[in-house]
Amino acid sequence: METVKIGMIGYKFMGKAHSHAYRDLPLFFPNTIHPEMKVICGRDLKAVASAAKQFGWEEYTTDWKSLLQREDIDLIDINAPSDVHKEITIAAAQAGKHVFCEKPLTLTLKDSREMLEAVEAAGVKHMVGFNYRFAPAVMLAKKLIDEGRLGEIYHFRAWFLQDWLVDPNFPRVWRLQKDIAGSGSHGDLGGHLIDIAHYLIGDMTEVIGMNDTFIKERPLPSQMTGLTATVSNQAEKGKVTVDDATLFLARFANGALGSFEATRYATGHRCTNSFEINGSKGSVIFDFERMNELQVYFADDREDVQGFRRVLATDPAHAFAQNWWPPGHTIGYEHTFIHEIVELMEAFREDRQPVPNFRDGVKCQEVLEAVDLSIEKRKWMRISEI
Amino acid sequence: METVKIGMIGYKFMGKAHSHAYRDLPLFFPNTIHPEMKVICGRDLKAVASAAKQFGWEEYTTDWKSLLQREDIDLIDINAPSDVHKEITIAAAQAGKHVFCEKPLTLTLKDSREMLEAVEAAGVKHMVGFNYRFAPAVMLAKKLIDEGRLGEIYHFRAWFLQDWLVDPNFPRVWRLQKDIAGSGSHGDLGGHLIDIAHYLIGDMTEVIGMNDTFIKERPLPSQMTGLTATVSNQAEKGKVTVDDATLFLARFANGALGSFEATRYATGHRCTNSFEINGSKGSVIFDFERMNELQVYFADDREDVQGFRRVLATDPAHAFAQNWWPPGHTIGYEHTFIHEIVELMEAFREDRQPVPNFRDGVKCQEVLEAVDLSIEKRKWMRISEI
Amino acid sequence: METVKIGMIGYKFMGKAHSHAYRDLPLFFPNTIHPEMKVICGRDLKAVASAAKQFGWEEYTTDWKSLLQREDIDLIDINAPSDVHKEITIAAAQAGKHVFCEKPLTLTLKDSREMLEAVEAAGVKHMVGFNYRFAPAVMLAKKLIDEGRLGEIYHFRAWFLQDWLVDPNFPRVWRLQKDIAGSGSHGDLGGHLIDIAHYLIGDMTEVIGMNDTFIKERPLPSQMTGLTATVSNQAEKGKVTVDDATLFLARFANGALGSFEATRYATGHRCTNSFEINGSKGSVIFDFERMNELQVYFADDREDVQGFRRVLATDPAHAFAQNWWPPGHTIGYEHTFIHEIVELMEAFREDRQPVPNFRDGVKCQEVLEAVDLSIEKRKWMRISEI
Amino acid sequence: METVKIGMIGYKFMGKAHSHAYRDLPLFFPNTIHPEMKVICGRDLKAVASAAKQFGWEEYTTDWKSLLQREDIDLIDINAPSDVHKEITIAAAQAGKHVFCEKPLTLTLKDSREMLEAVEAAGVKHMVGFNYRFAPAVMLAKKLIDEGRLGEIYHFRAWFLQDWLVDPNFPRVWRLQKDIAGSGSHGDLGGHLIDIAHYLIGDMTEVIGMNDTFIKERPLPSQMTGLTATVSNQAEKGKVTVDDATLFLARFANGALGSFEATRYATGHRCTNSFEINGSKGSVIFDFERMNELQVYFADDREDVQGFRRVLATDPAHAFAQNWWPPGHTIGYEHTFIHEIVELMEAFREDRQPVPNFRDGVKCQEVLEAVDLSIEKRKWMRISEI
Repeated sequence: METVKIGMIGYKFMGKAHSHAYRDLPLFFPNTIHPEMKVICGRDLKAVASAAKQFGWEEYTTDWKSLLQREDIDLIDINAPSDVHKEITIAAAQAGKHVFCEKPLTLTLKDSREMLEAVEAAGVKHMVGFNYRFAPAVMLAKKLIDEGRLGEIYHFRAWFLQDWLVDPNFPRVWRLQKDIAGSGSHGDLGGHLIDIAHYLIGDMTEVIGMNDTFIKERPLPSQMTGLTATVSNQAEKGKVTVDDATLFLARFANGALGSFEATRYATGHRCTNSFEINGSKGSVIFDFERMNELQVYFADDREDVQGFRRVLATDPAHAFAQNWWPPGHTIGYEHTFIHEIVELMEAFREDRQPVPNFRDGVKCQEVLEAVDLSIEKRKWMRISEI
Repeated sequence: METVKIGMIGYKFMGKAHSHAYRDLPLFFPNTIHPEMKVICGRDLKAVASAAKQFGWEEYTTDWKSLLQREDIDLIDINAPSDVHKEITIAAAQAGKHVFCEKPLTLTLKDSREMLEAVEAAGVKHMVGFNYRFAPAVMLAKKLIDEGRLGEIYHFRAWFLQDWLVDPNFPRVWRLQKDIAGSGSHGDLGGHLIDIAHYLIGDMTEVIGMNDTFIKERPLPSQMTGLTATVSNQAEKGKVTVDDATLFLARFANGALGSFEATRYATGHRCTNSFEINGSKGSVIFDFERMNELQVYFADDREDVQGFRRVLATDPAHAFAQNWWPPGHTIGYEHTFIHEIVELMEAFREDRQPVPNFRDGVKCQEVLEAVDLSIEKRKWMRISEI
Repeated sequence: METVKIGMIGYKFMGKAHSHAYRDLPLFFPNTIHPEMKVICGRDLKAVASAAKQFGWEEYTTDWKSLLQREDIDLIDINAPSDVHKEITIAAAQAGKHVFCEKPLTLTLKDSREMLEAVEAAGVKHMVGFNYRFAPAVMLAKKLIDEGRLGEIYHFRAWFLQDWLVDPNFPRVWRLQKDIAGSGSHGDLGGHLIDIAHYLIGDMTEVIGMNDTFIKERPLPSQMTGLTATVSNQAEKGKVTVDDATLFLARFANGALGSFEATRYATGHRCTNSFEINGSKGSVIFDFERMNELQVYFADDREDVQGFRRVLATDPAHAFAQNWWPPGHTIGYEHTFIHEIVELMEAFREDRQPVPNFRDGVKCQEVLEAVDLSIEKRKWMRISEI
Repeated sequence: METVKIGMIGYKFMGKAHSHAYRDLPLFFPNTIHPEMKVICGRDLKAVASAAKQFGWEEYTTDWKSLLQREDIDLIDINAPSDVHKEITIAAAQAGKHVFCEKPLTLTLKDSREMLEAVEAAGVKHMVGFNYRFAPAVMLAKKLIDEGRLGEIYHFRAWFLQDWLVDPNFPRVWRLQKDIAGSGSHGDLGGHLIDIAHYLIGDMTEVIGMNDTFIKERPLPSQMTGLTATVSNQAEKGKVTVDDATLFLARFANGALGSFEATRYATGHRCTNSFEINGSKGSVIFDFERMNELQVYFADDREDVQGFRRVLATDPAHAFAQNWWPPGHTIGYEHTFIHEIVELMEAFREDRQPVPNFRDGVKCQEVLEAVDLSIEKRKWMRISEI
């Protein structure tokens, strides 16, 4: 297998990010299998035609099912809205196509489990788009933990803070509708934190959460697309049916304590996606707004020079860094997607499942749902009982 | 009244901090009532004699009750271990002495309520030692909130991180024994966070928490004093009966969400006492390790220059700053105590209760106990039901 | 003109950066003229063939002169070593080709002036690769100055700190040979600082500098390529003939004071390319290692909340930001090149000279040479006399 | 000798800082010789009487010569304006009194040399008030250098940035008059940087500088005192006769390069007193606005976790820290003076000269004057020729 031929469904924010990754991968990672950008699919003919040209796809279509019948498509990349992930995934798997699906896998745990069953039954490869795992600074944290350099882990705290909903006149876009988006800050932002926790710390055993919707009604947008929307002066109002902020406490299987916060009302924070881990031998702190950096502390440093180090993960010793630029030259958000696709391509080369895959997606959904249940029932929920 | 004559019980860490504050106040705040350092009291004659000389007290004694009978003592300053706060406070109040008591007021909510009753029945002044309120940067946060410059408050998150227990050979000092210390990180560190939350945000309505004791047994110290201790090579081990870390979620009466973390196992953090507040118009972030700074964000800043400002609270516009040094010259931890005593002296000058007083101490104790109950019962606890 | 057809000479570090920019521009900037990656040229047939494939060029060649004779080439991109810039530029201009040349224009001021004459005589477009101008945070600094929001400028200080030469066993690569590289840290790093100073503050009138070569001999590399090299165990040593560090003071035409530092011996700094500007109304600070951020201070902020703001230049109000990702999602080093090429393409669309062009390159060379002369003669040098 | 009896001349900013240090020293450093606050002296009877009471001096006087005749005075502390330092020092030395003089020693190099001669001829102890040496974080830098942990030093850069002159309506106070203040930012701020350079790196061999006075005339103050002043609406204007900013380059005897900047026009900087040192094995960065911290980098850290460490110099391993508070509890600006007086008292206990003493004061003055000459003559000045 020399290339993996891609059919992609979706062409908005994530469609652009994925296209960029496919397009740039061969330049920076010439020695792995390369993706081929065969067909892009979307509902609006004119828009998808334009996206095809802009992003560099060979063909475009509005009929996603047609992709499944083509022999020259190996993998279906699904980044359409979450409410259609399940139908497409199951059909793709049954057609023998490999599947790369954006997070969240789908709106409910039940649906995500059916998706996992489908891909496993079909024996295809499956991947879920938790791209933050692929920041080199996050991978450094993983390495330090795996090598025991942080010792026993006592604590994980994570917070994903945005502020795009602080303006009460921001319109009621689809991301604020439970039937389309599934949840609000919880699934969108908290989902990333949960996956990072699984990646770095491991399974959780129980959780309890709280949430709120601070502004309950917002003007209806006259037009909406992706993350932006316009709103007319005297727009009617519609109900916000998702959470604006969700917090929860967790216990990990290894005994560590966890705290999680996701909010779209943290004024001043555009995209503060952070975590801190405290272990018996050391600690690390990450902030996505400075995604090339990891703060690292070692308890056995000489006693007069102990302190958090600001490590710039751009040295040859850091994951993927040699494929980019000389030390000190930072990379951007979109490169996490390139690294993600490298993992996907390597999985093809080595004929194994990529990581994270649908099992990770389901695990994330389990925690999301356990938190929601804990809020509804006002009590601790065990993950194993979900 | 030209001076307030002090009798102080206790001469360790807090005794030193209070003595320093009494000693320095007249130099920096010449225009308020001044404290007079009359008598210092402690259990060990030699040690208290030495402390009297070092700290600058006129007399010393080992008999705390003798202070209550002296006409030349106006106020009893209690910074002895928490388990004796109650007995001394009640006796002092009954003797008509004003009381300044270190936090926590006492080991249990019930006891702290009795202390409050005693001082109120006696009609004396009472203050509790939540010194972090008196950092100028924290007072700036208070001012911004009170003037509405942060808008409606959505979120309060606070974390008090230390790491002095990470070494498993650190001995089982009295602070790790529930019968003497009441609780561990929760009362010691969390108590400060709760008071700051009350000060800046207001009352909480309900809480739920979790905690852990990571290292359950530690070598018994051969000798212990204050925060330090020595441990022999083959010491026997004793049980740690307090929490190493306590986390909890809270709902505030004004609708804001709260999250709190207190731990002595956050490797790399000597004394990270931090909070962040997100409001509809702005946000602030404080970290005690950089106690002269407040990060401040305003949502109505011009759109191309929005960002957190690092405000150094040493300008003439900042609380207390004019009494110190020119702008940019930072002050230290111990000055929070001077400011605290200034408030106490001003309360005498204006014949009113100082703030924070025992009502604040009791309120803090209510939340501490509610969190402990929520952990024991594994369910949300309403503060009003405590 | 719908596309600009590129012939590129050079395929190492800058060749990769430029190729990436040509390749990605249409994806992120669909509405400007697009470059066409026609031919890549290099001296080593096998290597250039491989680069052509990796980077995405239609053709490759080892004969740079052949590019000048092709009608289907509009622009020659020169990123070969500096000692060949002049010959290629002059030939290209005479052949009527537009020229985009990496910095430094060439090894000497005299040569760079001849290059400028050649392109002006030929009436072709010319651009020089000072890519740091194109970081959105730097462009924000420019905007604040141009709009008068920093007031009168008093001070410019800049420092470009790297540490790749601290190891005495690092080999004597071509960048350490004056005959090939022209100069060391001065031209390589200082050149960028000088251009930024010209861009943001304006012309300098006089300079005085100092420099040093800390390690005078280094092992000869057995093989060298780009920034990396291998060295055998018992390699002979060769002389380092360029500066390891160069510092200089400057006076600007507008009266501002300037200080500049460039060094490859600043242990701990991989690529700290920073400047600070102090004006009568405000200040800004930039650090390339956090290239998405600009620290901004305004003297007229309300007196209790004055402080440097950390502005993340990823909001819609910031240059180019709308073409990338939602606010808070940072971009990387290589995107400065995309923005640079956008400027080049826009110059074609509007039929004007791009900025920075060879006039800027010559101005930079003037200051570099004036500094070198000031070191040689140990006296202040006026730029107008160079 | 059990105490050192102090007679102090001056009672403004520095008089307050010194008084505080004398007053607090016994509390925090009980085991050294203690100062006795005997007499304070100033020109204004009412003001000095008030200061005596506020600061805690036993007596006060307006006749400085009377101090020299008293047997119960051991040491004269001079913090009156710089233009009277010389006369008082020489008289005090001749009277056999030890002398502690604030920086700068005096207005000219010649005068400072005469002062040094006088104290050496008299055989008295002498100290100069370079207090920044006594920040524990700065002392950590010194320790790392002395132990060879930074290796060979290549680079020293330092900048002292203030902004109190940016407002053109700030009055022409005495600090802006050459005849009283000697110089402007150069002597006031640059003097501190030069002393730190001598302390940490060693002697300089040659310098070249530049300076400017940005606002040449300012309203005359109706009244002026210390750092503050009032100005009437239609005040006449007076000439500013000192430098607003001075920059210089230096060569150190050990071969290191140095750059220095001192300015009172760095908008946004209240008191940024910073230096960075780059050595072959490591680097350090200090900023007085975060005076408890030192950024430390080691080149031999494991290759995947190299980065500047933020060391909080409050651990038991740090200078003086054990006399203060537990780790993580920061100290303030005024504590540098306490440490300074501890050194002075220890010099009495051990019967040796304190450090820094007048030799250091003269060395600082040599560099200040060399820089001024280099500006006047527009050429490099060798320190040895001053």
